[in-house]
Amino acid sequence: LLPEDLTYDDRGLAPAIVQDARTREVLMLAYVDREAVRRTLSTGTTWFYSRSRNEYWNKGATSGNTQKVVEVRYDCDADALLVLVDPAGPACHTGETSCFHRTFEQADPTDAAE
Amino acid sequence: LLPEDLTYDDRGLAPAIVQDARTREVLMLAYVDREAVRRTLSTGTTWFYSRSRNEYWNKGATSGNTQKVVEVRYDCDADALLVLVDPAGPACHTGETSCFHRTFEQADPTDAAE
Repeated sequence: LLPEDLTYDDRGLAPAIVQDARTREVLMLAYVDREAVRRTLSTGTTWFYSRSRNEYWNKGATSGNTQKVVEVRYDCDADALLVLVDPAGPACHTGETSCFHRTFEQADPTDAAE
Repeated sequence: LLPEDLTYDDRGLAPAIVQDARTREVLMLAYVDREAVRRTLSTGTTWFYSRSRNEYWNKGATSGNTQKVVEVRYDCDADALLVLVDPAGPACHTGETSCFHRTFEQADPTDAAE
């Protein structure tokens, strides 16, 4: 498979999940286009496309919290990526290891039964 | 946070990563809208919105490969979910445990140096 063989949405983007290859913690989700996938594969560091700034960004280029790419997987529909990385520091701009550090409270099952 | 407080895209959707709570394997990525998040939180099983079929689906409703929700996390931008589950069977319709079972070949670093 080549970067151009992935299925991108009408904005030309696909979601990329970033997971710590060692701890298996899911660190972040960002978006890639064909060029960001190419750069990620060729440089061995994570590249994404920013939907708000309309530009490419190389994770850690300013913060120093780079992500060394260990493996890039794609799903059965070839429309989402899973990037396994060796992170040099926290993924989140808040300083947390993972961007997914907050939890929804689930409904109490006894409420649902009423 | 409530399901309506998440940030959804212009289609009303947000990506939801599903991860095995025990093995930490990333199983699949699907999309949710506000109603799918509500159903996931209230039923304790995973609900998604199908972009191609324009309908809700409850993972495992036909295959039996249900996913019991252990925890629902959201990211720092509140525009992506991470759902930790206890799966009753494979996540992928191919029979593989994870939909992310194929790998991109990375460029040879010696090529990149040329």
